[in-house]
Amino acid sequence: MSAARIPDCPLARTVEVVGHWWTLEIVHEVLLGRTRFEAIRDSLGTPADVLRDRLGDLAAKGLLDLDGPDYRLTALGRSLRPVLQVFLAWGNHRLAPDHRSVVLVDAGTGMTVDPILVDRRTGLPLDTEGVVFARGPMASAMIAARYPEVGR
Amino acid sequence: MSAARIPDCPLARTVEVVGHWWTLEIVHEVLLGRTRFEAIRDSLGTPADVLRDRLGDLAAKGLLDLDGPDYRLTALGRSLRPVLQVFLAWGNHRLAPDHRSVVLVDAGTGMTVDPILVDRRTGLPLDTEGVVFARGPMASAMIAARYPEVGR
Repeated sequence: MSAARIPDCPLARTVEVVGHWWTLEIVHEVLLGRTRFEAIRDSLGTPADVLRDRLGDLAAKGLLDLDGPDYRLTALGRSLRPVLQVFLAWGNHRLAPDHRSVVLVDAGTGMTVDPILVDRRTGLPLDTEGVVFARGPMASAMIAARYPEVGR
Repeated sequence: MSAARIPDCPLARTVEVVGHWWTLEIVHEVLLGRTRFEAIRDSLGTPADVLRDRLGDLAAKGLLDLDGPDYRLTALGRSLRPVLQVFLAWGNHRLAPDHRSVVLVDAGTGMTVDPILVDRRTGLPLDTEGVVFARGPMASAMIAARYPEVGR
């Protein structure tokens, strides 16, 4: 996962793009509908010059675009939603199960939803010892030295 | 999500515990079976004094324990697995779909698994505009000002 040593690791790639916690923080604000510079600044309390640099960085990484006065998430930016959802779920489940200040809701049904990671094909939950990180088809020698070969 | 301003937000709570990227990096190493100090150090290339501080920080946060010469993840530490899995999936899907150097495999069947976040109850995928971050039952005034009220 160390970007300098394993540039071809998908975890390192994610960390390189997400980079700093404020990336997720800003993506979250735009997802919540705060698309104007002033609204994001007021909500996060980030100094204007710092926020301007950060928004520029996110645009350079392809996570958002400026559309007139509004910041819009790109498809890549919107695709970070599951990362935010899993952070929320972890915070609720593991750190404050009796103090759920923010939840995920299906706006269509009004029901609270509880995120769980499953295999797309089988629907089986992945949070088990039986699901392991393993060498992929495009593993370099360095990745192969760090990850076991499992299955096909 | 800004910890200083919204200490009761579950995203802020998660960020406070996960803290730095090296938290996930070290948890990942231990999950991969590298439980000895020297093995983690050699794999990550972290200087020994830095790594010692980081391992101490993770132990203080309740993510791992030292068991003789081996670092063991606590239940809380192991519960970070979905966070790592979603990072891996995002890196593979969004950043390098044709260069999957690391994958998740079901060790029982040998099949590659593809993580997707669904609602535990309905099994419906959550990566849709229809699933929103909303005010929870324990929302403070500050959270209520930042999140919409949706459903029940």
